[in-house]
Amino acid sequence: MTAATNATPRIDLSRLLNPRGIAVVGVSNDPARIGGQALRLLTDFGYAGRIYPVNPKYGDIKALTCYPDLLSVPQPCDVALIALSAERVAGAIEQCGKAGIAFALVLASGFGETGEEGKRLQAQLSATARKANVRVVGPNCLGILNLKDNARIGFGGTAQLRTLKPGPMAMVTQSGGFGFGVVAMAAYSGVGCNYAISSGNEADLNLLDFLADLIERPEVEIVVAFMESIDDGRRLLAIAERALELGKPILAWKVGNTDVGSRAATSHSARMTTSYAVYRAAFKRGGLVEIREADELIDVAKAFLIRKLPAGNRVGIVTLSGGAGVLLADRCVEHGFELPPLSEPTTEKLRKTLVSFASCNNPVDATAHSYNDNYASYGEALRLVLADPGIDQAVARVPRGRGARPWAENLVQMLQGSDKPVVLNWPSAPDDNGDVLAYLEGNGVPCILGAGRAARALAALTDFARRRRARQEQGKRPFQRLVVRQGLELPAGPGTLGEHRSKQFLKRYGVPVVREVSLQPSEIENLEAAPLAFPIAVKIDSPDVPHKTEAGAVRLGIQSLAALKQSARDVLAAVRQHQPDARIEGILLQEMASGLEVIVGALNDACFGPTVAFGLGGVFTELLEDVTYGFAPFDAEAAREMILEIKGARLLDGYRGRPKLDVAALADTLARISLLIADHADRIAEIDVNPVFVREQGVVAADALIVLKE
Amino acid sequence: MTAATNATPRIDLSRLLNPRGIAVVGVSNDPARIGGQALRLLTDFGYAGRIYPVNPKYGDIKALTCYPDLLSVPQPCDVALIALSAERVAGAIEQCGKAGIAFALVLASGFGETGEEGKRLQAQLSATARKANVRVVGPNCLGILNLKDNARIGFGGTAQLRTLKPGPMAMVTQSGGFGFGVVAMAAYSGVGCNYAISSGNEADLNLLDFLADLIERPEVEIVVAFMESIDDGRRLLAIAERALELGKPILAWKVGNTDVGSRAATSHSARMTTSYAVYRAAFKRGGLVEIREADELIDVAKAFLIRKLPAGNRVGIVTLSGGAGVLLADRCVEHGFELPPLSEPTTEKLRKTLVSFASCNNPVDATAHSYNDNYASYGEALRLVLADPGIDQAVARVPRGRGARPWAENLVQMLQGSDKPVVLNWPSAPDDNGDVLAYLEGNGVPCILGAGRAARALAALTDFARRRRARQEQGKRPFQRLVVRQGLELPAGPGTLGEHRSKQFLKRYGVPVVREVSLQPSEIENLEAAPLAFPIAVKIDSPDVPHKTEAGAVRLGIQSLAALKQSARDVLAAVRQHQPDARIEGILLQEMASGLEVIVGALNDACFGPTVAFGLGGVFTELLEDVTYGFAPFDAEAAREMILEIKGARLLDGYRGRPKLDVAALADTLARISLLIADHADRIAEIDVNPVFVREQGVVAADALIVLKE
Repeated sequence: MTAATNATPRIDLSRLLNPRGIAVVGVSNDPARIGGQALRLLTDFGYAGRIYPVNPKYGDIKALTCYPDLLSVPQPCDVALIALSAERVAGAIEQCGKAGIAFALVLASGFGETGEEGKRLQAQLSATARKANVRVVGPNCLGILNLKDNARIGFGGTAQLRTLKPGPMAMVTQSGGFGFGVVAMAAYSGVGCNYAISSGNEADLNLLDFLADLIERPEVEIVVAFMESIDDGRRLLAIAERALELGKPILAWKVGNTDVGSRAATSHSARMTTSYAVYRAAFKRGGLVEIREADELIDVAKAFLIRKLPAGNRVGIVTLSGGAGVLLADRCVEHGFELPPLSEPTTEKLRKTLVSFASCNNPVDATAHSYNDNYASYGEALRLVLADPGIDQAVARVPRGRGARPWAENLVQMLQGSDKPVVLNWPSAPDDNGDVLAYLEGNGVPCILGAGRAARALAALTDFARRRRARQEQGKRPFQRLVVRQGLELPAGPGTLGEHRSKQFLKRYGVPVVREVSLQPSEIENLEAAPLAFPIAVKIDSPDVPHKTEAGAVRLGIQSLAALKQSARDVLAAVRQHQPDARIEGILLQEMASGLEVIVGALNDACFGPTVAFGLGGVFTELLEDVTYGFAPFDAEAAREMILEIKGARLLDGYRGRPKLDVAALADTLARISLLIADHADRIAEIDVNPVFVREQGVVAADALIVLKE
Repeated sequence: MTAATNATPRIDLSRLLNPRGIAVVGVSNDPARIGGQALRLLTDFGYAGRIYPVNPKYGDIKALTCYPDLLSVPQPCDVALIALSAERVAGAIEQCGKAGIAFALVLASGFGETGEEGKRLQAQLSATARKANVRVVGPNCLGILNLKDNARIGFGGTAQLRTLKPGPMAMVTQSGGFGFGVVAMAAYSGVGCNYAISSGNEADLNLLDFLADLIERPEVEIVVAFMESIDDGRRLLAIAERALELGKPILAWKVGNTDVGSRAATSHSARMTTSYAVYRAAFKRGGLVEIREADELIDVAKAFLIRKLPAGNRVGIVTLSGGAGVLLADRCVEHGFELPPLSEPTTEKLRKTLVSFASCNNPVDATAHSYNDNYASYGEALRLVLADPGIDQAVARVPRGRGARPWAENLVQMLQGSDKPVVLNWPSAPDDNGDVLAYLEGNGVPCILGAGRAARALAALTDFARRRRARQEQGKRPFQRLVVRQGLELPAGPGTLGEHRSKQFLKRYGVPVVREVSLQPSEIENLEAAPLAFPIAVKIDSPDVPHKTEAGAVRLGIQSLAALKQSARDVLAAVRQHQPDARIEGILLQEMASGLEVIVGALNDACFGPTVAFGLGGVFTELLEDVTYGFAPFDAEAAREMILEIKGARLLDGYRGRPKLDVAALADTLARISLLIADHADRIAEIDVNPVFVREQGVVAADALIVLKE
């Protein structure tokens, strides 16, 4: 496990999401203007709180009293919806403070997302809000939709749709336009959303603040986070941990992941970008469900709304057509499912239930002939498969025609007695069995169009359930700290430490390093016997020569004292010639080591803090980017899980007659390096341990480098 | 290019697809029975030909004369639709022959897909059909839907749907239930289908016969092939080449690709399965579009129905929301698109057109403010991007609200003057702008829901266009045969050839092999000087010891004559001890070689014939399955393309300071090996050349093995 981290305290956003009164600052009676739209969204959709238009130009507007300024607005007023142009916003926020309005929601663009002037305005906005003790949503946002209470606080085309509907989902999005569009799509597909929040430029309240609040709400079962980047990865992980505890999935949709996309995201929201690979690792560790497509989001949400989690990854497939069964089998296997054979009693019962040319193995094909008994035998086959003790969940196909409705009704009843989730994959257009689909979905049986999409949705449930079980297991044992915090005599200021010194600090944390001595040239000349066993490697030990091989500052496989002395001279000469200014701390003599080469890196990520990267050496890391990440500190068990994630992990496990290597020792070393960087995150920017040799017994670090912070 | 192959002659299926008369054998007046359903499908959907019910039990049926047997049916009758049980089918086919009915369509199950009795019945059916000169569709199929001419010849739930509609697509499917379901879904999504053919067990006519006919029909623009396996991969490639020539895409949907799926497919249709990796390589080589999901199929079909192919892979993105632009940019890059910066004049015009805080780079974000001018500026932005000479195609978002319809109308008009395809990605539910979507799609502008799905559909166009251009280029130059057919003195019968003999045959085809001599033990003992330059490798040369290293029959890096002699003795002793029966052809002395290790394999695939596999050595091939396939014979240019396909190809190209290796020589060697196996496909089962060392200049094969056919 990763050591426990605390989320910053939750800010209770009840009064923001469901305000007793809303002031609309910059209100207009022109519905084409933002201030006009914002007012109409409140008046036309049944908002039950008080509405206070604010504009010195009007007496009253839409039969509502219009106030000249925020100070004259009556209490209670929880939110000021500010529809003013950028340069007038800070003044309005100051007024909120004076009027005792706790929340301001700023719609205007022209802040941090534009040039220098915009950035200045945003800084001014933030400072004013802090001083006035007002919490701000936006700027450059579309607002907040509370569909449960008919409070549509914002503007824009999507907010005006009558088709939006409340429901157990909540959305927080850094792109209002896109995120609200997805909320509309979900509504069309039957998935309602109680809250949709556009976080805009996040001058004050950010995506994580909203996430932390939303997961605690009983009326929210699923939270979607559409993000370009966040500023505090650890808080995301802490929120994710809390969400796992609550059993509520966070669906994380991250964009700006390719170079081009990331450049576009930066220009769009002026946010820093952290590597997508690190985000993905965080999603995995935290049990967040990564989403990449709109229909995937809806499919996954529907699957979670079954409100049953599978106990394992074994799936049963039941269809009416062989082709569909084969396709579903392919996709389930690709998504990591097992398709175990059914138990002998189940198969026996299936044989008695289905026609003679049916397939009674997993995947079960009842064949189209079940049409003739109104799908009674098909329904019974699904019941039998689901009841099999070796099956955790099932996928089946929706039938068509007159028998489909009774089949669906029986299914819904049967599922009430089962704690295993079932997802249906429907083969055809909804216009010929639309009522059956609607009935099924209305009763918690998702009907998902594509075979791959159905498998994906079930896989999201399975992964979430597994992560939740793992968390419960972990909760029972304390974090295993392998070594207490070590004081290190790190030099002041930035810079790279020499190899020998770097290794001394690694040793302090219990990381095994090759036997070595660092000697002065004169000491080497005076040696009468080698201080280590041959063969020996000779290297320069200098903080200024990080790439020793390229500098000609390494000699390997030395077998005699004479050769050792000569190598020391050669190495010294090479460095003096190529880098005359390099500070030389000594000449390093090392016993040669061997084993499978792996690389352990640790860095202080701007968003996720101390992070450890692990991969195999050579082409695996360089060319194939087969790297995994862990968030420091973590213990050996978490490290073991990390190690087994990489594609090349099989090389550690006796692949093709190779010896089985000491994964336990490697995990131990990763955990210790994670403690080193976490304990000294204030000073250490980066640790590179490359290579570490993994052997049949133990591991050993052959080279290392510590970089201190600026 | 791959050497030209000829498709078997096309069987003209006009009379099958659009028969003048159809006899329904085993007709019933019970609509629940297959013979009843089949008749109703013809009478109720407006089939214009003659219908001849055949059943001795009835006088007339549904106001149609019923005939006692096929011989009494009047002419013209092109198709006998046989709705009899399995054991009665052969007799009916015999009657077809006598009655001069050219085609029989057999619906019954209980043939090859079941046990031994079924296999016997299917063999009998095939033999009868050949003798009677009748072409058969099925058995175990759902029939043929000709929606253009209202001929629904078959049975089943989907065939009865009123929502099916004709259109430029055609489908041939080895799973009738699944494939017809997809046809229904496509119709619901606006893509009509003129023909849908369920090929069933393919006792006579098979998927490729249908494919070959369908691509030639002017009323067919896109053909979908849903397959579990085919029996003649080369014919598929030949048909694909013809389809490329015609500019008609074949959408290939292959299932049974995982172990479990493949097992299920085998039990479902009793077909042999070839590796999915080989199929995928064939799809790529042939320019087939691989499909894996139902909505992907519809998206791709819609994109092709734009009827414009892009000139390159440069895409312009225009949106109304930054988040959508970033997401689309990510997905386009992931699908291999370039997002070039726009030209200076385009950017300049965009700046004048859009609001000040819009993003005028690619992706262009016109921002939600374009709502205020009814999307006039947004429409103009898309026009400008599409007109940019550096852009080959564009993706944009569908707007919403009152301005959307005029925007759409302007767009449709503008696109009439452009030869570049545009795909729209729509952000929201169709219920708020459904009429706009319908208008756009009705006018050849596809509106695709997900960003990834939109990018995927455009990528299918781009790949197809590239492959078509490549084919046109290739058409201009003849196949480059690097060496004429060589007669080889292959021993009679099956078996493995020894290394030295295998290499002699490779040399005959111009494959460079290491310098080596094969000597008898006594000859080695009598040597007075080494016959090759040191260092030398010593190996046993025996067809019975394919794994020499494991048998202790290899010594490497020998530096002296004495060591060479001792090694020869050791190697011989090791083999005599472990494999006393091994036939020893000699002791092989080789000059040591080095370079980047690659593996070239060639095999005679049951479906695709002589096929060459290529991959890098070690973990790349073994663990990462980073292997590519080519269909022999091919020339050096095709080999070069193959080589560059693998993930590890960068290692050949001066990756991270390594030397650039001789890819041309490697391509030459692959092409020569492809000629060797193709010329001798009747005798050679397998060739393994492992390793081949690739150097800065040239390549050299260090070990090789040829296996002869059973």
